[in-house]
Parts: sequence; structure tokens; C-alpha cells
Amino acid sequence: MSGSVIIALDAMGGDFGPEVIIPGAALALERHPDLRFRLYGDEARVAPLLGAHPKVAAASELVHTDVAVKMDDKPSQALRRGRWRSSMWLTLDAVKNGEADVAVSAGNTGALMAMARFNLRTLADIDRPAIAAIWPTLRGESIVLDVGATIGADSQQLIDFAVMGEAMARALFGIERPSVGLLNIGVEEVKGLDAVREAHQMLLGMKLPMDYKGFVEGTDLGKGTVDVVVTEGFSGNIALKTAEGTARQISEYLKAAMRRTLAARIGYLLARGAFAALKDKMDPRKANGGVFLGLNGIVIKSHGGTDAEGFASAVVLGYEMARNGLLEKIVADLGQYHSERRSSAGSQANSVAS
Amino acid sequence: MSGSVIIALDAMGGDFGPEVIIPGAALALERHPDLRFRLYGDEARVAPLLGAHPKVAAASELVHTDVAVKMDDKPSQALRRGRWRSSMWLTLDAVKNGEADVAVSAGNTGALMAMARFNLRTLADIDRPAIAAIWPTLRGESIVLDVGATIGADSQQLIDFAVMGEAMARALFGIERPSVGLLNIGVEEVKGLDAVREAHQMLLGMKLPMDYKGFVEGTDLGKGTVDVVVTEGFSGNIALKTAEGTARQISEYLKAAMRRTLAARIGYLLARGAFAALKDKMDPRKANGGVFLGLNGIVIKSHGGTDAEGFASAVVLGYEMARNGLLEKIVADLGQYHSERRSSAGSQANSVAS
Repeated sequence: MSGSVIIALDAMGGDFGPEVIIPGAALALERHPDLRFRLYGDEARVAPLLGAHPKVAAASELVHTDVAVKMDDKPSQALRRGRWRSSMWLTLDAVKNGEADVAVSAGNTGALMAMARFNLRTLADIDRPAIAAIWPTLRGESIVLDVGATIGADSQQLIDFAVMGEAMARALFGIERPSVGLLNIGVEEVKGLDAVREAHQMLLGMKLPMDYKGFVEGTDLGKGTVDVVVTEGFSGNIALKTAEGTARQISEYLKAAMRRTLAARIGYLLARGAFAALKDKMDPRKANGGVFLGLNGIVIKSHGGTDAEGFASAVVLGYEMARNGLLEKIVADLGQYHSERRSSAGSQANSVAS
Repeated sequence: MSGSVIIALDAMGGDFGPEVIIPGAALALERHPDLRFRLYGDEARVAPLLGAHPKVAAASELVHTDVAVKMDDKPSQALRRGRWRSSMWLTLDAVKNGEADVAVSAGNTGALMAMARFNLRTLADIDRPAIAAIWPTLRGESIVLDVGATIGADSQQLIDFAVMGEAMARALFGIERPSVGLLNIGVEEVKGLDAVREAHQMLLGMKLPMDYKGFVEGTDLGKGTVDVVVTEGFSGNIALKTAEGTARQISEYLKAAMRRTLAARIGYLLARGAFAALKDKMDPRKANGGVFLGLNGIVIKSHGGTDAEGFASAVVLGYEMARNGLLEKIVADLGQYHSERRSSAGSQANSVAS
């Protein structure tokens, strides 16, 4: 891809709508001046904000719609009320029609996933899309998927996740053969679920641009043992939320400890640069943006409650994914894997027949 | 229960064996002088340590065996080599024969679970035991089960976990009606697994000493939203390990931040009391001890790599469980639940027949 990266933005998504989306777009544009936006939303609310952000206005095309999906709409409601005409739908439509490279929305996850599946459709060999999260680790960042779209994935789906995650790691981190691990538990002799064991066996024999490392455990997530951690959506979502909760818990402990004595308060003041660096490391806004993988187009889901800084992270993530050809990498690797799988199944069938 | 609490200790279990077990028993005995021990292990290694800890020696009976389960024995190997005669088996045997109230081992989890099931057998209505962990939270502590014994529990097993967890919360925290939540994810419209949804419906109608609060998410673990969090073992183990990993990750960040500048290092020195308090809060040794629930006897699994302080926590946990009648509470509540279930199934069958 040369020239600009065009991002479609659901200007009405999230808890705050355009009041966060437009300033967020402005921050992203500062970092990547070759960004261009297609904005979908209520002109009466969006236009004044564009007036306050003339650089965004100059880089954007605004398409008016007065239908917006609500944060508490069920996916079925959202589809009924918002298909064809809501800001969320039109944002996805821009990707479908080739008017934008990526869609970004802070709207509600269930509705966005339902609309994305309905509008963009899944890739040829994919049954259900996954949501990939970027996980801050001691080594930097890893990709974890699925974090909540597919509950109880079978072995074939886990392998598709591995392939899509590997492609995303190549696009995002610029690594040629990302390391990949399968999330499992190590307590019992017969470890893990059948699907996880099967996927493990299949991954060991695969010829794809990944370095498959076998099983990893929950502790490996924070360590960053592998670039890509593969799991089904139920445990993936629980892991993600547990890590968020634990981080919040420890920062509460830390705050309380630093208020305990006068010496602690003075120490805190002296070390406040260090605490700021720590806060920055733990800033959930930095890793904002779940990537929907497995669709005919790249869709980024921003946290609904984030601020402009967090929304900018999601936009920048979308920019990087488009710039580095994420979708093309996924299509190529999935195509290679599934054609090999089919031809080996075919030759097995032949050898049985002969 | 009046008089002493007698705890059977697998003196050879764990990465360090008696060198940690005996000093750990000594620390526990300081806290609860009415503790008595039955020690199982190699006299040549245990006796000298008892010489160094005369109070433990006075409170103990040592039974010699030179067979010990290894930390990397598979459950099947452990059973083959260690049945009838290993220190782990004899420790469990003491509970079975009524010579001890609780068994504590730092030996390998798979072997201990296999031997415990084989020797103690599961309670009448229980198919597979669960492992309950004590989870430090912002409100204090919660009980989380299962953390790795039963992969993919069905709705009936989830309810058994809820009942056993509620009984353990009553025994450990002294709460009359502990709050109970079912771990789930909130991303998709059709939330969670079938088993989780079914268990939810069944729990809503139950008459037991618990305050069922419905679904909780991963973030609720650290908050301590409920006293008891129920989940199947795969996600429970992943949640536990993810929280451990995140805590370690943040403490690494914190250490690095506090070394960054001279001001930060001075600040650290001034606030070192506060940091010590924080470290204490996050000390994994304090919450050491997974409780095996659903067996005809209480078995505590200590971390294999813990030190004397950590092992003492596991012993004290066993003491409290015995002192507060955990097993009796579990038997009573499970009995009540299953007899109601059976009679309501019977009356439904009758009403269909009539």
C-alpha cells in the first residue's frame, strides 16, 4: 500500500461519542500525518468538533447519519435498528466498499461483531472470527487471541487463530517467524481439553511462518514467553479480565501503601518520576484496541470508556495493521494452510481408496 | 471438635522435603499450640530436624518410610510405586483411618489428587473433586474453585463446587451466608457456555446458606466482589496463573522504576516500610494452600517450591478447616442439596406419571 491510509471512524461509538473520537483522531493524525479519515455520525455533533480540530477536518470526509447503535443494544436490536444506516454499519461498509482500509469503532462489542460478520462476512475458511488483544509483557508486547468472540473453539479453529495471530505478529512486530504458544494448564496428568491437545499435535507438523513452542500457561502471558498466545474465547476473556483486575488491585495496594506514613509520602514525592513511568507502563489506554480477525476487512474495537489518548491508540493500531498488510498476510497464510490441509486429506482419501 | 487438631504431614513432599516441612510445622505450631502432627518420611532425614525443633518433636509422632513420590512422577507412576507405603500415601491414610484431621502435602499435585481419590474416595454425590484456592482481594480474601482438577465441568459439577465453596467460606471466614458468583464472560449476546448458563438457572432457585449473586467476570476476582467464585478447572487455572504472572510482572516494573534515578532510589529508601507492606500484601506464601474438596477427608496441597513460611500457611489453613468443621459442613450441605434435587426429580416424575 502506498499513499495515505484511510480509516473509517464510527464517530458516535463509545461512551462519549464524537467528543472523544475527534480529539482521538487528532492525536493519531499528529503521529501519522498520512492518515485520512471517513467519519460517520451526526453532523450536528461532529461538525463543531471538526471546527475545533481543523487538521482532522482537512484530512476527513464526514458522512451524516442520525442513527447510532447504543452501548446497551443487543446485537439483534443493533442489527434490526442499525443495519444499512447506523454510523457503525456505515463505518464497516466503507471497508467493504474499499473506501477505507480499516474500520475503528468504540461502540458495543457484541453489536460490532454481529454487524461485521453480517456486512463483511468471514474469510473463506473461517467459521467464526476471533478478537485479538495486544498484551503488555515483560519482553514488550504479545498478541493473545481469542479474547471473547468464540466460546469453546475446536482444534481447527484454534489453528486458524494461530495462523491469524502469527500473521498479525508479523504485521505488528515485524518478526519473520513469530513464536506461538497454546494456552493450557499443567496440573493434571492428562492435560488440557481435547481440542487443545489435538491442535497441539497438528501445529507441531505445520509449515507456516511461525515458531510453534507448544503449551504455555497463564504465568507466561505476563512474561511474554511467546509472541502469540492462542486460546479459545472463554478462557481468553477470563485471562484478560483477570489480568486487568489484578493490575488495578495492585495499584490500589500501592496507592494505599504510599499514603501510610509521612516517610512514605515524602518517598513517593521523590520517586514520582518513577511512579509516572510505572503508571505509563501499566496504562491500559496504550494497549487499547481489540482486532477482529477472520473477516474480509480489518475492524478495530476500541474500549467504549476510553479517552482521546486511548482512542488514538486504537486508530494507530489500525494504521499499522493496514500499512503492514495484515489482511493480505492472513489471507495468504490461511490459504496456504487450508489448501495443504485439503490436499493432504485428499491424498489420504486416495490411499484409503487404493 | 475439642482438644488438639491433628495434622498428617508428608515430610518428604515438595522441592525441599523435611528441610522446609519441619521448620514450617514449627512456625504453624507457634501460632496454634494445640496442633499435633503425624509425620511420614525418612527417619534418617527427619529425625535430625526434629532434634533442631524440639517443640515440633514433642507434638509429633514420626512414622518411618523410605518411599517418596517424586515431584515429576506421573500420577500413574506414583500410584504404582507409592501406594500403601509412600509418605504421601501414608499421610492420606492417617486421615482415612481417623488418626489425623487433615492431610497436608507439598508433593506433586497430580499424584496427590490421584492418591487422594484412590485412598479417600469421593463423597457420595461427587464425581470428581475440585481444588479451591484462596484469592487475595481488595476486600480481603475470596475462595475460587476449581483451579485445575476438573476440566470442562458440567452444570451439576458447577453447583457442587458452589455448595462446597460456600461451606468452605463459612468455615474459613465465619460468614453465615457467603456471596457466590459464577465466572462468565460478558462479550457476546449469548453469554457463556451452556453448562454455566444452566448452573446459573439452577443456582437462582436453590435454598442453601449462600447468597447467589449471578455472573461475575475476571475483573471481579481482584475486587473481591463475592466470597466464592465458581468456575471449571481450565479457566480457573488460567485465571489463577494469569493473576500470579501479572503480579510478578508489575513487581518487576516497580523494581525497575525504583532503580531508574537517584531521586527514585532515595524515595524508595524513605518509603521502604510502605514497600515492605506492599510486598507483604502481595506475598504468594500467605495464600499458599489449595484445598481438595469433595473427598472423604480434607487434603491441603502446598506449593512444592514454597519455604517454611509458605508451608506454615498451608498447615494453618488445614488447622482452621478442621477446627471449623469444613468436612461436616460440606457433607451436610451437599446432602441437603442432593436430597432436595432427587425428591424434586421424583415429584416431577410422579406428576408426569399422573
